[in-house]
Amino acid sequence: MAESMLGLKRSHRCTEVTTADAGKEVTVMGWVQKSRNKGGIIFVDLRDRSGLLQIIFEESECGAESFSKAERLRSEFVVAITGVVESRAGGVNENLATGAIEVRARDLRILSESETPPFPIEENSKTKEELRLKYRYLDLRRPDIQKNMMIRSQVATLARAFLAEEGFLEIETPTMIKSTPEGARDYLVPSRVHPGSFYALPQSPQLYKQLLMCSGYDRYFQLARCYRDEDLRADRQPEFTQIDMELSFVDVDDVLNVNERLLKKIFKEICNCDLPLPIERLTWREAMDRFGSDKPDMRFGMELNDVSELVKDTEFVVFKGALEMGGSVRAINAEGQGAMPRKKIDALVEYAKGFGAKGLAYLAINEDGTYKCSFSKFMTEEELHILAEALGGKPGDLLLFAADKDKVVFDVLGNLRLELARQLDLLKKNEFKFLWVTEFPLLEYSEEQGRYTAMHHPFTMPMDEDWAMIDTNPGAVRAKAYDIVLNGTEIGGGSVRIHQGDIQSKMLEILGFSKEQAQEQFGFLLDAFKFGVPPHAGLAYGLDRVIMLIVGADSIRDVIAFPKVKDASCLMSEAPAPVDSKQLEELRIGISKDSE
Amino acid sequence: MAESMLGLKRSHRCTEVTTADAGKEVTVMGWVQKSRNKGGIIFVDLRDRSGLLQIIFEESECGAESFSKAERLRSEFVVAITGVVESRAGGVNENLATGAIEVRARDLRILSESETPPFPIEENSKTKEELRLKYRYLDLRRPDIQKNMMIRSQVATLARAFLAEEGFLEIETPTMIKSTPEGARDYLVPSRVHPGSFYALPQSPQLYKQLLMCSGYDRYFQLARCYRDEDLRADRQPEFTQIDMELSFVDVDDVLNVNERLLKKIFKEICNCDLPLPIERLTWREAMDRFGSDKPDMRFGMELNDVSELVKDTEFVVFKGALEMGGSVRAINAEGQGAMPRKKIDALVEYAKGFGAKGLAYLAINEDGTYKCSFSKFMTEEELHILAEALGGKPGDLLLFAADKDKVVFDVLGNLRLELARQLDLLKKNEFKFLWVTEFPLLEYSEEQGRYTAMHHPFTMPMDEDWAMIDTNPGAVRAKAYDIVLNGTEIGGGSVRIHQGDIQSKMLEILGFSKEQAQEQFGFLLDAFKFGVPPHAGLAYGLDRVIMLIVGADSIRDVIAFPKVKDASCLMSEAPAPVDSKQLEELRIGISKDSE
Repeated sequence: MAESMLGLKRSHRCTEVTTADAGKEVTVMGWVQKSRNKGGIIFVDLRDRSGLLQIIFEESECGAESFSKAERLRSEFVVAITGVVESRAGGVNENLATGAIEVRARDLRILSESETPPFPIEENSKTKEELRLKYRYLDLRRPDIQKNMMIRSQVATLARAFLAEEGFLEIETPTMIKSTPEGARDYLVPSRVHPGSFYALPQSPQLYKQLLMCSGYDRYFQLARCYRDEDLRADRQPEFTQIDMELSFVDVDDVLNVNERLLKKIFKEICNCDLPLPIERLTWREAMDRFGSDKPDMRFGMELNDVSELVKDTEFVVFKGALEMGGSVRAINAEGQGAMPRKKIDALVEYAKGFGAKGLAYLAINEDGTYKCSFSKFMTEEELHILAEALGGKPGDLLLFAADKDKVVFDVLGNLRLELARQLDLLKKNEFKFLWVTEFPLLEYSEEQGRYTAMHHPFTMPMDEDWAMIDTNPGAVRAKAYDIVLNGTEIGGGSVRIHQGDIQSKMLEILGFSKEQAQEQFGFLLDAFKFGVPPHAGLAYGLDRVIMLIVGADSIRDVIAFPKVKDASCLMSEAPAPVDSKQLEELRIGISKDSE
Repeated sequence: MAESMLGLKRSHRCTEVTTADAGKEVTVMGWVQKSRNKGGIIFVDLRDRSGLLQIIFEESECGAESFSKAERLRSEFVVAITGVVESRAGGVNENLATGAIEVRARDLRILSESETPPFPIEENSKTKEELRLKYRYLDLRRPDIQKNMMIRSQVATLARAFLAEEGFLEIETPTMIKSTPEGARDYLVPSRVHPGSFYALPQSPQLYKQLLMCSGYDRYFQLARCYRDEDLRADRQPEFTQIDMELSFVDVDDVLNVNERLLKKIFKEICNCDLPLPIERLTWREAMDRFGSDKPDMRFGMELNDVSELVKDTEFVVFKGALEMGGSVRAINAEGQGAMPRKKIDALVEYAKGFGAKGLAYLAINEDGTYKCSFSKFMTEEELHILAEALGGKPGDLLLFAADKDKVVFDVLGNLRLELARQLDLLKKNEFKFLWVTEFPLLEYSEEQGRYTAMHHPFTMPMDEDWAMIDTNPGAVRAKAYDIVLNGTEIGGGSVRIHQGDIQSKMLEILGFSKEQAQEQFGFLLDAFKFGVPPHAGLAYGLDRVIMLIVGADSIRDVIAFPKVKDASCLMSEAPAPVDSKQLEELRIGISKDSE
């Protein structure tokens, strides 16, 4: 039978009780973590979101009724306990915040009983994720998940306070909007009042935040729920949250500056990590050349080097062939790995092939200065020497070469670099290395669609000095776009937006929109552009990813209270689910035969 | 041609420039409010979200090029102006924050031109709302709407900061959930991965916040987007925002206490209004008896009085008849309205009939103490005198009587009271009177459905002392439910929740759920209740309504950036709209014939 808490008030959360309270009476409430009877004394570990507190029941102290109730306690019972704080008799438990004290119970009420939970409530659970997600309300009791949720809450609070302080207005944009087929797939919401018509859930508040700039709000932010009906990967969810912002009368530097201060504040307060400003900036071109990636992990070096010039006259056909088809030969130096066993090198070659490489050439420098090299028979000792020199190779180093089209070379070496760092344990979760990547290409050519698509989105401003090339060499036009990268993960990105109607129309034309399509989909934005638009720019963070990196979670599901799994269903609530036929009739929609 | 702001930085927003800046060079950017040429000097009112600033162009000062550009300026052009701050030559404009200064321009760039807007950008627009909403991005430039949005942003920031300070965690709950047909109509989202299945958009995060309490989060809050597919009234929107919270290990008083401090903080900081605590509390019973309403406006008195006992033996059949069918006779005293002309009284009678009254009896006390009374021929002078006395009637007062079933009497007099207050101008928008209404009935009988329905929702805790009546007299069971009322509008409400599985099952049974239906719809909550649930309670505010009352807006659309109209469409974006047939095919849904 559940007892009432009538007349009782909690005085402390578990870890708010300290040695300074010794001798005082406290009332604590929470869940029984464990309970054991040792020689007529019952020890209970009481848990709440703050942590654990040890309670002691002795019949002489708490009376027969409470003692007999205490004998019935099992894991996850919810109890209210009144008792007196004492220094711990059995010695200090260094693992607990409250390890130096205990509470000698005088009264116990059982507020709610519990069946035996399907898995233990403990950190670093070994329980299968499927079971944990089915009983998410129990999984959410685990201290590590609770810590993630608390940090998420703190980050949101800090971000909002900072942005409000900086003159940003929090403005809510609608989440039942018009569908725009460009981009990912929209989730649709059928209209009952207008049968045959649909709302879409927003993929981002992009158009609305630009309209708010047109409307003079100057600085906007929102922690915005966004929706994409994509096939889910490990780090995707059908709904996710962005820290979204937009600023007027600014250029790239202004956006980067305010965001650097925001990041500094968050990482100082949450991780006690001093982030040196300004954050390093690389252009997209430089990031690719030096790291083979547009989101390089800066926690280690191992940069790429272009050795095309050095090898172009050698006899090695793999290198020469790559250069002849317009590609390049580039290499990284895995310092100190010169003695890597052949088997491990072979595994790296296989790994590289996974990214499109036809092979991977290597040159190991033995401790005595001699070489072990996969292409030594095609080069002179002198040529090998020049290569080693150019790559800073010292005795004991391992040089790895990729030769192919640039795209493949970057992909192979960029990923190889990461793989080596993992093997060498260079990626520390508590080290935070930020990087801005700027000047992204405006467009990328889609072989599939046979046309250029927007690399960022259709509202991204081209760089002034490149715009003249838009018809002659569109692929070379750079954009005022930027990404913020943390430890090799893109955690946010944005751009200066086009605010001129003529440039916007030209962009949409380049992207293959007819005048009618452009008007149909973005008409209200194009119309707004007729009435005085300020220069504006913005940025959005993927909040879920930011939290994942801060807490070191391996799955996005560990930082979302009620996540969905890969097929976009919720294992706890069993959503989505069939609905009443009456509901569908009201919406005038039917389910196609082949799915029934 | 739009010019670039390259190389320019804004130094101030318009009203950040003050007399202290006299002599300094500033760079301001914004919209041209108006522009006029007076004898070779061009005066421009520059507008940004902070307000207006006067700029002066003289060719001798700014040069020929800038001057000729200044001559081209029209309303809503976006410009960047660099100039020197001066005390105003033409005398101070007391209506402007910057009325004592002006900026003498040295340089002008036109960042964006504007066509003539379809309506002027000004406060208290007379423009038809339909046109304003079609061009919402222009409407949002109007200073009064901008003020509303800024206050909304401030309230959100304040509420979050307060709640975080009080130990509430902000936790995001999912917005693609399972449909629960109880309550209002759900908006549905078809699943592509599971054809024939649907998500629903949440009407509130109710189940999830209760689960978070089960999971030990102790105190939760969220500014949560909620969705209801209802036929829209003036103050409804398909999507709206709640300040939503839930607390564990608390009873009614704890919830009321923390919310009183939240309200005090908001109204102090935003309205500079000192809210005396504690806020007055009335039980639902008392609110009905004294004000005929469960959300009485406390800015004025004019309370109801039950005169049934006094009239039960008189000859007036209207009164006697009401009493015989179990109803009552109640009255209000419209003080000082004794001389109200007959025509106006007749209008009040008609007004009362709109709320179900068959008529309205009145007794006016003339200045000489004689009576003018609609039922004088059925009562003795003595009986009239006793009635007048009981209602505190003085010469010059007007007493108005309703006799019917209680429900009708309350509805009639409760509304009549408000109507009189409106006529007498007793409702000041800048006076804020709060009230808690508590102890609502747990159930209300639905004639339509022939069963009891939950007055609040199915998770509301009955009052301990009333629960024994649940089978014998369910209508008399009171709930631990409470509403917060501001100036006669319910701005929020909540309850202590049931946390015992057995009581919850019984409640669902009373509400007509079969065991299977209960499990189907609320299974995961009922399951969670098996594993140790803390006593918990919560409350949610309708943020849109709170802001409406704070800013004195007449329409909810004036406090939402991009609102929808009565048919749930957006006049600006034209959502909802038909979608590509490809999108529907992917979802395997079809539109019923009769709607095509």
